[in-house]
Amino acid sequence: MTKDRYQKGLDKLMELTTPDSENPTGHMDIGEGFKDIAPDLSKYVVEFAFGDIYARPGLDNKQKVLTTISALVAQGTPQIGMHVKTGLTVGLTPEEIVGCIMHLIPYTGFPRALNALKAAQEVFEEQGITITLPED
Amino acid sequence: MTKDRYQKGLDKLMELTTPDSENPTGHMDIGEGFKDIAPDLSKYVVEFAFGDIYARPGLDNKQKVLTTISALVAQGTPQIGMHVKTGLTVGLTPEEIVGCIMHLIPYTGFPRALNALKAAQEVFEEQGITITLPED
Amino acid sequence: MTKDRYQKGLDKLMELTTPDSENPTGHMDIGEGFKDIAPDLSKYVVEFAFGDIYARPGLDNKQKVLTTISALVAQGTPQIGMHVKTGLTVGLTPEEIVGCIMHLIPYTGFPRALNALKAAQEVFEEQGITITLPED
Amino acid sequence: MTKDRYQKGLDKLMELTTPDSENPTGHMDIGEGFKDIAPDLSKYVVEFAFGDIYARPGLDNKQKVLTTISALVAQGTPQIGMHVKTGLTVGLTPEEIVGCIMHLIPYTGFPRALNALKAAQEVFEEQGITITLPED
Amino acid sequence: MTKDRYQKGLDKLMELTTPDSENPTGHMDIGEGFKDIAPDLSKYVVEFAFGDIYARPGLDNKQKVLTTISALVAQGTPQIGMHVKTGLTVGLTPEEIVGCIMHLIPYTGFPRALNALKAAQEVFEEQGITITLPED
Amino acid sequence: MTKDRYQKGLDKLMELTTPDSENPTGHMDIGEGFKDIAPDLSKYVVEFAFGDIYARPGLDNKQKVLTTISALVAQGTPQIGMHVKTGLTVGLTPEEIVGCIMHLIPYTGFPRALNALKAAQEVFEEQGITITLPED
Repeated sequence: MTKDRYQKGLDKLMELTTPDSENPTGHMDIGEGFKDIAPDLSKYVVEFAFGDIYARPGLDNKQKVLTTISALVAQGTPQIGMHVKTGLTVGLTPEEIVGCIMHLIPYTGFPRALNALKAAQEVFEEQGITITLPED
Repeated sequence: MTKDRYQKGLDKLMELTTPDSENPTGHMDIGEGFKDIAPDLSKYVVEFAFGDIYARPGLDNKQKVLTTISALVAQGTPQIGMHVKTGLTVGLTPEEIVGCIMHLIPYTGFPRALNALKAAQEVFEEQGITITLPED
Repeated sequence: MTKDRYQKGLDKLMELTTPDSENPTGHMDIGEGFKDIAPDLSKYVVEFAFGDIYARPGLDNKQKVLTTISALVAQGTPQIGMHVKTGLTVGLTPEEIVGCIMHLIPYTGFPRALNALKAAQEVFEEQGITITLPED
Repeated sequence: MTKDRYQKGLDKLMELTTPDSENPTGHMDIGEGFKDIAPDLSKYVVEFAFGDIYARPGLDNKQKVLTTISALVAQGTPQIGMHVKTGLTVGLTPEEIVGCIMHLIPYTGFPRALNALKAAQEVFEEQGITITLPED
Repeated sequence: MTKDRYQKGLDKLMELTTPDSENPTGHMDIGEGFKDIAPDLSKYVVEFAFGDIYARPGLDNKQKVLTTISALVAQGTPQIGMHVKTGLTVGLTPEEIVGCIMHLIPYTGFPRALNALKAAQEVFEEQGITITLPED
Repeated sequence: MTKDRYQKGLDKLMELTTPDSENPTGHMDIGEGFKDIAPDLSKYVVEFAFGDIYARPGLDNKQKVLTTISALVAQGTPQIGMHVKTGLTVGLTPEEIVGCIMHLIPYTGFPRALNALKAAQEVFEEQGITITLPED
């Protein structure tokens, strides 16, 4: 049965990423790099973060990624780039992602927002994405 | 001209709140309580936070409030209740607001989420809102 | 099977608290107060926070509570008092709890430590605990 | 000799506060309220925070209080009011204190600044202070 | 008229930096690197952060930079070096800058202060600055 | 006498590190790299952080390092690796160190825990440590 919950998490994960032959979870880091010291970590990521929480009804995927990015901007944690990629995968436009970060300036201040824009810009460049500029 | 920017901010503000005869900015606190010590504060709130940032294209109002609430949950700042009210005003369902807070558990931990749920719950009770429970 | 994981979490929880007829989970708040808006919350608390994480081998209960309190001191979140109670339940002495908070001064600064000492002091007073003062 | 360092801290402390017969350290909380659980705390506050650090050359008292308040605004810790009182004691004008908090808006966001303004306003009201408004 | 506010911000900015032929805003990053994804960002930086807030009466430039650095030390954000440069430009001595960071140890803890000292040290080395050591 | 306090700090420090001919304080950074700009810093680290606080009765060394690591995980400060080394020196097992970080997931969220696991993993690899995996 735990299997089912793990499977539910993996299914959700697959909505959020584009796996290829080398990366079975695509751009998503589920903690497999810690198998040697915390082999149970990726189980919690898949079962709890994806199977329980990400699969929870209430918000759609685009809203969930916006929510995630916003919290990471406020925290100043370095995982923003990965979630920008997730946002693009679920259909957030680059304009929405930038709009989210810009919107946070009055709440988190410029420094946190600048750090987040840098992370987003790097992902856009990597993926050859150009943005349609908002008209002022 | 600054007038126009202030007006643009006020117009945006009016989309986000329901003013009444006693509260011309509805539930929104634009810093008028600090007129005695920082009389320019409410100008910055209206012009910058609302006129520049909240009125910026890129995200719709519902996305903007979700983004705001998410950052405040991560910061642990006490203004969450006010933004929950804004969310309800722009059409976020209580399910979406709760969904946003619940979604943040893996990113900010349980304590910050519990504090935010308390703030949301108080607003819902005040407004007589009952929530349609997500089916598990 | 999920039942088993829930049961595992409840069993762990019972090691950390002293239930009485009115409070089946003792002093521990597992989020039951949010049943009206987030009925799945207490399931995550019990299954994930207690069944998966708190029941994880690697640290004993006393170490786990010290670890928890330390993180909350650094965050400045208001749940410290509850975890001080948990610490006393699992056998941490008041000296150890105070020692933990005092130890954090060089890492988190005095303000966060003072707030935490206040929370601990309130629990000690409530439980009629007096502390054996460390000799300088 | 430790006596000397303690005395050096007390002397510094007296520059920052106005003691009266009931409060030998004036408005300054040096942790005496925790004598029952952490009797060594006030020694560290006096010796380290005041004797070592506050007495350190490099900044004058007004700069030191501005520096302190700024950090607390960014942290969102609740001790701001006490340091606003210290600022007034060492000769910071209310305009400077408010100017400091307002200056932080682009760095910490509005919510943290609003919380700090509230704390400052309460001190000003308590002390019957009115502020000369900056001309825009 | 917005032009005027932009110009006011630029004028303020010029007090804080030393432009040269290659860097029209000197060491100050006003977000021009994000022109491709958030072309309105530098306008907000110049108009709001510099034109509204930095140009606000109440504090002099030296106080404003101390205030800024203090908040960034508390946040742990990586922009400290840039503001150390600004401090030197407006006439803060290296002793004052180091004094500010050292003063924060009791409020933010050693780790944040050590990170900030590293950033300051790098700027001093880059500019060939040696510091007059405070006598203890 | 200050000498004694400094010596007390050094003695404590020696319990926490393994000095060699090139590194008289072993892996522990006591701020000697800032001698040119803040020559009094290492005195505060040794006297206050080690002589006063680390030498304080109440917790044993293993508890103190767990407490330290937990606070740094919550803060997201980059000094975690150094304290992981200290933990290994005082006898914490790698399982306990990983157990501490894993335990914090429900309190600080996954991102902070992942960053800390990375820092621990690097230290383990550097020291050729393999971990006995907890059985699930």
